[in-house]
Amino acid sequence: MSPTSALIVIGNEILSGRTQDANIRFLALGLGEIGAPLKEVRIIPDIRETIIGTINEMKARYDQVFTTGGIGPTHDDITASCVAEAFGVPLELHEESAALLKTHYGTDQFTSARQRMAMMPRGAMPITNAVSIAPGFSIGNVHVMAGVPSIMQAMFQSVRPNLKQGTPVTSRTWHALGLYESAIAAALEAVQDRYPDLDLGSYPFRREDGRRGVALVAKGTNVEHLDGAAAQIRSLIAATGETPVEGEPKP
Amino acid sequence: MSPTSALIVIGNEILSGRTQDANIRFLALGLGEIGAPLKEVRIIPDIRETIIGTINEMKARYDQVFTTGGIGPTHDDITASCVAEAFGVPLELHEESAALLKTHYGTDQFTSARQRMAMMPRGAMPITNAVSIAPGFSIGNVHVMAGVPSIMQAMFQSVRPNLKQGTPVTSRTWHALGLYESAIAAALEAVQDRYPDLDLGSYPFRREDGRRGVALVAKGTNVEHLDGAAAQIRSLIAATGETPVEGEPKP
Repeated sequence: MSPTSALIVIGNEILSGRTQDANIRFLALGLGEIGAPLKEVRIIPDIRETIIGTINEMKARYDQVFTTGGIGPTHDDITASCVAEAFGVPLELHEESAALLKTHYGTDQFTSARQRMAMMPRGAMPITNAVSIAPGFSIGNVHVMAGVPSIMQAMFQSVRPNLKQGTPVTSRTWHALGLYESAIAAALEAVQDRYPDLDLGSYPFRREDGRRGVALVAKGTNVEHLDGAAAQIRSLIAATGETPVEGEPKP
Repeated sequence: MSPTSALIVIGNEILSGRTQDANIRFLALGLGEIGAPLKEVRIIPDIRETIIGTINEMKARYDQVFTTGGIGPTHDDITASCVAEAFGVPLELHEESAALLKTHYGTDQFTSARQRMAMMPRGAMPITNAVSIAPGFSIGNVHVMAGVPSIMQAMFQSVRPNLKQGTPVTSRTWHALGLYESAIAAALEAVQDRYPDLDLGSYPFRREDGRRGVALVAKGTNVEHLDGAAAQIRSLIAATGETPVEGEPKP
């Protein structure tokens, strides 16, 4: 069995619509590559009880949990404190991270707001990264990362060697212009029944030039099954009279 | 109190990273406008027990719940059946919707796959829309919509008059180039303490020209409080020596 992953997006700015999320897809692809696929995402507000409750629920249910957001220097950055409470440990200054921040900003400019960024639950390991001096951290099976996409991405690359990994998820895609889902629904279900370990999906698309069609995607970890399913998907498209084309449609 | 909303995104294609979500932000903004703000989003896979359990949990916790995805004609489109089970009612053919689909496709082409798109839980009301013949539906406090963004948006406009509404959430934003969060953290917290009913956030940004800064956003339903907080936010930026500019930064 592949290890399972879940993501908690902590941020009023996503729930209010101010910000378009740019982290979910990056993590979904990265976790698929290391064979620890994303099984659930929750987007929750900056409310203590909600954050603590969600972390407790998710860390028990999934092999590893990621959080994004809420680790900056302002009053609404309460993620570290909530993770500490979820693990039942005190929040304290991480001396090594504090020293790095102090060197970076200078002693005069290492204000109490900036000290917040070196506060971690006792026992946490910092997630250093190339983009930001302020670190994320890992504790138990929970990995706490920044919400700013460039920093989050650097933190994920940094923590990646420490993650639980499995067999990479790969996919085979065929698409056809002019195809309708209803024309292939029964045949596609038969392929799904033959390969229950794969995840088969059909996705209607509309290209920028206005032409419509459907993409059929098989995902999984067993390459032999993927190749078998892909051949059948190609055939079932051809049986409708439309032309199967390998890969995703153009935009 | 404003009514609360939650969104369940049903779709393996978001969790696998195949598809960039384009629905969350649209609904977040739309629900803010009608004063029924989005309080939680869950992205879950196409697994029966997960969908049923999540619907049951969310419809008890929030005033209204939206789902997107899983209402097409293929084997992985199981949302309607799961909603029926969550409400403890049978899934059955909605005669009026079936008649519309039959007229549209013609009797010969109204295949069993297409009939799936007229299946609804008993007692559901269809959400007709201008883009797609296949409807969504509402039952109890749950509104079931398509995953394809153009269809979802049309369905939301169609169901909007039937939704629970409250005082619209509005916002005031000031930003400044060269500003650091740590420089305003304490002053911003003081504004938050003075207006506990508002949601105050600080968001670092980096423009396309490489210049960095911070945007400060006050959100809420009380316009007098918003105006008061906005004036104080303007002042606290000016006190750092940077120039406060009203509104969001340019890209």
